[in-house]
Amino acid sequence: MTNKINKLFDIKYPIIQAGMIWNSGWKLASAASNSGILGLIGAGSMYPDVLEKHIEKCKKATQNPFGVNVPMLYPNIEEIMDIIIRQDVKIVFTSAGNPKTWTNWLKDRGVTVVHVVSSLKFALKAQEAGVDAVVAEGFEAGGHNGRDETTTLTLLPIVKEHLNIPLIAAGGIATGNAMLATMVLGADGVQIGSRFVASKESSAHPSFKEAVVKAKEGDTQLTLKELAPVRLIKNKFYTELETLYKTAPTTSELKTLLGRARAKAGMFEGDLDNGELEIGQVSGLIHDIQSVEDIVKNIIEEFERAKQLIKTF
Amino acid sequence: MTNKINKLFDIKYPIIQAGMIWNSGWKLASAASNSGILGLIGAGSMYPDVLEKHIEKCKKATQNPFGVNVPMLYPNIEEIMDIIIRQDVKIVFTSAGNPKTWTNWLKDRGVTVVHVVSSLKFALKAQEAGVDAVVAEGFEAGGHNGRDETTTLTLLPIVKEHLNIPLIAAGGIATGNAMLATMVLGADGVQIGSRFVASKESSAHPSFKEAVVKAKEGDTQLTLKELAPVRLIKNKFYTELETLYKTAPTTSELKTLLGRARAKAGMFEGDLDNGELEIGQVSGLIHDIQSVEDIVKNIIEEFERAKQLIKTF
Repeated sequence: MTNKINKLFDIKYPIIQAGMIWNSGWKLASAASNSGILGLIGAGSMYPDVLEKHIEKCKKATQNPFGVNVPMLYPNIEEIMDIIIRQDVKIVFTSAGNPKTWTNWLKDRGVTVVHVVSSLKFALKAQEAGVDAVVAEGFEAGGHNGRDETTTLTLLPIVKEHLNIPLIAAGGIATGNAMLATMVLGADGVQIGSRFVASKESSAHPSFKEAVVKAKEGDTQLTLKELAPVRLIKNKFYTELETLYKTAPTTSELKTLLGRARAKAGMFEGDLDNGELEIGQVSGLIHDIQSVEDIVKNIIEEFERAKQLIKTF
Repeated sequence: MTNKINKLFDIKYPIIQAGMIWNSGWKLASAASNSGILGLIGAGSMYPDVLEKHIEKCKKATQNPFGVNVPMLYPNIEEIMDIIIRQDVKIVFTSAGNPKTWTNWLKDRGVTVVHVVSSLKFALKAQEAGVDAVVAEGFEAGGHNGRDETTTLTLLPIVKEHLNIPLIAAGGIATGNAMLATMVLGADGVQIGSRFVASKESSAHPSFKEAVVKAKEGDTQLTLKELAPVRLIKNKFYTELETLYKTAPTTSELKTLLGRARAKAGMFEGDLDNGELEIGQVSGLIHDIQSVEDIVKNIIEEFERAKQLIKTF
């Protein structure tokens, strides 16, 4: 396969492994890059010194391109960007912030920049800011998400109508069929998150991986829209949130219930009751924990089978 | 094209024009059936005698198969079902209710029965009830919708894994590309609503059709989840709802604000401020009002072009 995304990142398949907090360390990113796709380290859950170690280990573990995902709402962004340049990382995905803030600075230093958006408005802002590609992520995606609640199926063709740079689809994609479907809708490639949470190489706690495998259709919900919308598994913490919502809480009351470090507790430490278990709706389609290599192999095989299937329509 | 859906309904293309309240009278349904797809009269907004007249006119306006959509939450269902049998309508789509209630009764009288669902659980219930096909409708769809908020992209493959009967995709489909994408995800055919609201033959008020054409990505919202979740354009009425929601309203207070006949006021009478303007997220991709014949022609052309495009992936 050769298309805009393969060429942009110099990878074999136009697939990006999402840089997810508490899941995407050097083991996942290097396994992804070694499997012919683009691996991303998720900087959002790492102190700067931890990120630097992950980058160093990732460089040793793969000769292939990899990148770092930087959610710009977290602290220490200056330090993180300095590490990225010092470590000669050539690809950065930014999210959760204004693409104008860092794009020029990164591009001046030879970095390929991609920005993650959840709406047409922000896709155009990212294009204006000069990014090399846009990830358009739909409502079904896990973790932090947009306020417009536009789904991948509708967001992609709407963004495609107005965008001149490469478009990467995200949200709801765990199979080769979904990959082909999003490309039919105008995507040049896909970013896959949830499927890689349930991989051997993800740094998620084994209990969280099991929770992802067990999750069924309807088990996740987008919540905390007043703070930063996030999709998670409906566990005990979510039930507490639901109860609080019945009282028309202030954002301050929501913040108090949310507290600190719930994402770490849930996804990294395996506290399935009290943690934030961020995962996409497509978890209902994930039934096992596989190696990244096998996941990529399966997706490509499904993609090719789906291409053949279309001939019968 | 020949597949399960074409054969089930004896139609040229595996496309169903959704039977939408205040939009889908005999003019829309017969135009759809005359264009080679399945037209549906929307009984949800019709008194029994009005429905009977629409069926009679539809029979005169087309020789091709057509059906009636019956949302089972509305009153007069017994009378409506009797009319359907008396008028020899051969296809019924049921929604918003238990598929067990009417499926056997209708099938005993020679009717092909399809049930609309928004979750895997209800898809399996419909299959158990003996329906001939299931419409799986995602979160992006306009009008009344499910509580699980599962999007079309994720709902389809999850339902497909467990369903043995034909599967029709709905929600977010207005183009041939989206039609092909949903078939790649496992659908045998598609049901299209919003695109046909903005058709010459829909009975929607011209002002509402214009509002659909003007709607952009992010302009609709799923709301009133405590009563019956409904996706609509964010107008003055929606802003009033938002204000009320800040006070943690009871369902009774929500019902009072909703009042009566807002759907009719918005969609049929053109009160864009105070009416309920039910439409899908895909309205952001609809830019003109066309005849049903042209819409179908465009969709089929897009579908064939998309099939060719895939060969280049």
